[in-house]
Amino acid sequence: MAQIAIEASRPYAVHIGPGLLTELPQPDGPTVILSDSTVAPLYADRLSNLRTSDPIIVPPGEDSKSFATLERVLGELANAGLDRSGTLLALGGGVIGDLGGLAASLYMRGIEVIHCPTTLLSMVDSSVGGKTAVNLASGKNLAGTFKQPQAVYADVETLGTLEIEELRSGFGEVIKSALIGDADLLEWIEPQTEACLAGDPEVLTEIVTRCVRVKARVVSADEREAGRRKVLNLGHTFAHAIEQVAGYGEIPHGVAVAVGLVLALEAGAEIQLLEDSSLPGRVGDLLEKLGLPRNLDELRERSGNSLAPPALQRAMSLDKKSAQGSPRFVLVRRAGSVEPDSPLNEGLIESLLTPR
Amino acid sequence: MAQIAIEASRPYAVHIGPGLLTELPQPDGPTVILSDSTVAPLYADRLSNLRTSDPIIVPPGEDSKSFATLERVLGELANAGLDRSGTLLALGGGVIGDLGGLAASLYMRGIEVIHCPTTLLSMVDSSVGGKTAVNLASGKNLAGTFKQPQAVYADVETLGTLEIEELRSGFGEVIKSALIGDADLLEWIEPQTEACLAGDPEVLTEIVTRCVRVKARVVSADEREAGRRKVLNLGHTFAHAIEQVAGYGEIPHGVAVAVGLVLALEAGAEIQLLEDSSLPGRVGDLLEKLGLPRNLDELRERSGNSLAPPALQRAMSLDKKSAQGSPRFVLVRRAGSVEPDSPLNEGLIESLLTPR
Repeated sequence: MAQIAIEASRPYAVHIGPGLLTELPQPDGPTVILSDSTVAPLYADRLSNLRTSDPIIVPPGEDSKSFATLERVLGELANAGLDRSGTLLALGGGVIGDLGGLAASLYMRGIEVIHCPTTLLSMVDSSVGGKTAVNLASGKNLAGTFKQPQAVYADVETLGTLEIEELRSGFGEVIKSALIGDADLLEWIEPQTEACLAGDPEVLTEIVTRCVRVKARVVSADEREAGRRKVLNLGHTFAHAIEQVAGYGEIPHGVAVAVGLVLALEAGAEIQLLEDSSLPGRVGDLLEKLGLPRNLDELRERSGNSLAPPALQRAMSLDKKSAQGSPRFVLVRRAGSVEPDSPLNEGLIESLLTPR
Repeated sequence: MAQIAIEASRPYAVHIGPGLLTELPQPDGPTVILSDSTVAPLYADRLSNLRTSDPIIVPPGEDSKSFATLERVLGELANAGLDRSGTLLALGGGVIGDLGGLAASLYMRGIEVIHCPTTLLSMVDSSVGGKTAVNLASGKNLAGTFKQPQAVYADVETLGTLEIEELRSGFGEVIKSALIGDADLLEWIEPQTEACLAGDPEVLTEIVTRCVRVKARVVSADEREAGRRKVLNLGHTFAHAIEQVAGYGEIPHGVAVAVGLVLALEAGAEIQLLEDSSLPGRVGDLLEKLGLPRNLDELRERSGNSLAPPALQRAMSLDKKSAQGSPRFVLVRRAGSVEPDSPLNEGLIESLLTPR
C-alpha cells in the first residue's frame, strides 16, 4: 500500500495497492458510480458496501469519450436527483476517468469526483493530475477541463482481469514516466518483463507507485500546463496524430504513445540533443519484450494501417500543444531528463515518419 | 462611461457606456467572434477594426443553449485553427454569453473569453460573475462552469435596436438587483419608466452601472456560490420552474424572473419575514408600468399557458439550488436586504402558485 500526495490547488491523495476497492470510505453526499459495461460486472460489486444510486453504465472504448455520451451521463445524474453536494465515482479506465471527470466538472457547475482507475494506463497517467476531456471530430481531447479529484484509489488487483493487450498498452505510459523522471525504473523493469505481463500485484504496485511519483512531482509544480507539465506530453504529439489518422480507438493510446516515444527519441538523436545514443535501441528492445511495436513501421505492419506521413503531419499541426500552428515537441536528453519545448523542422518530421 | 472592477480569482473590469464596441482593444492571440444571426448583422461590423477569424453564428434564442450547439461551436473553433493562446469574443445576449463562456472554458481546457453583452438582461446579470451553462432536457443551466472573462464591454447603444419585449424583460433582473442591494434604484426608476423603455442611453448607462455594482459586490465576496452569492437567485427558483414548465424559450427569462420576484415577495409576506408590507404592491405597480406581468395569474393569461401548480412544484424540486431535494428560497426583508436560504413549506408554495 502506498499513498502519494498531490499538491494541486486542491490537494488530494493517490492510494495504490491490492484490494483497495473494498475499503473505500463513504463519500459525502449522494453518490453515483460511472462505469462501463466491461468493468461494472467485474468490480462494481466490490463497492457494494457504499451507499450509491444505480450505476451509470456506458459502452467500453474510446467512442464513449464523445459529446453525446457526456450529455447522456449528465442527464442521468439529473435523473438520479443528484444535487450539488453529490459525488461521482469513476470506476474504469482512462475513458471513464476523462468522461467522468468532465461530467463532474460540468454538472451543476461542479460536483466532487473520485477516481478508481482499473487499467494500468489510467493508474499511472490519466487518473492523476486533473485533466478531463472528450474528443471532437476535429481532434482528440479538444474539449475538457482541469478538475482535481477528491481522491484516487488505484486497486492493482483490477489489473488481474485486464486483457493482455490493454496491460501491454499501459506500459507505453510507464516507459514514458521512466524517461521523464525515473531512469532507475527502466533498469528495474528490464529484467522482469514477464512478471509485469503476468500481472504480479507486488511488481505492479511498485511500478504504479513510481510512475505516480513522477507525475505528482510534475503536476504539483504546474497544475494547468503553463510550462513544466508539458514534459508529460513526451511522445504524445506523435501519438495523438497516429490515433487520429488511424481513427480513434483503432490503435490503443498506450501503443501509440510507445511508438511516439521512439519517434521522440529518434528526433532527439537526429538533432543531437540526445546524449545517450544507445537509448532508442534500449527502449525499442524493452518495448519488444513487453509485446509492443518497437517503431512506427512495426506499428504499420501490425495495424494494417499505412499511417501516411502527410496525414500524420496534418494532424500534428492542429495538436493543441502547438503554439500558433507550429507543433512543439518534448524531447529526451537522457533517461530521466527531458527538454519540454523543442521545435522540429518539417523535413526532419517527414523523414522520421517515412517508412524505411 | 463607467468602469467597475470585479474582484474574482481572476480580477477583471466591466466597462459600461455608449459606443464601446468600436473602441475595443485587440485581444491577445487569434480571436474568434461568437454571435447569433440577429445580433451579428447589426453589430459585428462595429468590431471590424479588430483582427478576427470569420465569426461563428448560431441561431438566436434559448434553443442554442444546447449540447448540440456547444459541440458545433467547439468544432468551429477547431476548424478556425484556434490554439490555446486564442480568445473567444461573445457578442450577443445571455444565450451567447452562457454558451460562449462555456465553449471558452472547454476548448483545449480553457481559452480567454471577452463578453460584449447586447441585451439589458445580459448587461446587468449574465455577463458578470463568470457563470456559464447550457440546458439539459432535465433542467435549465444544469451543465456549466465558472469561467471569469478577461473583460466585459457593455455598449448601451446596442439596446437601441433591442425588441421592446426583450428590453422590458431585462427589467426583471434590474428590479431584482434593486431588491437585493440598491433600494434607491427602485425610487430612481419609478418616475422614468418611459425613458427606460425608450432606450435613453444616459438612463440605461446609469441603470446598468448600478446593477453591475450590486452584482460586483456579491460575486466578489463569493465567486463560486458557496454562500452569499445565492442572493442573486432571488425569484429564480420560481422563474426556472416557470420557464421549464412553459418549455424553454416560450417565456422570456426576465419575465419569468419578474413574476418570480413577486412570488418571493408574497412568500416573504406570508411568513412575516417581509418588513415592508407595501413592497409587493409597489413592485407590482412598477412591473406594470414597465409592461411586465404583475403576478403569476397575469403571466398565465398573457402566455396562454396554465402553468399548473403541481408541474411547477415538481420542477422546483430538481432546481439545482435545492439541498437534498428540498428547495431553498431567497426572500426579501425590505428593499435592498434579502435572506438567502429560507425553506418554505409545501402547502405555502402550493397556495402561492394556485390561481386566484
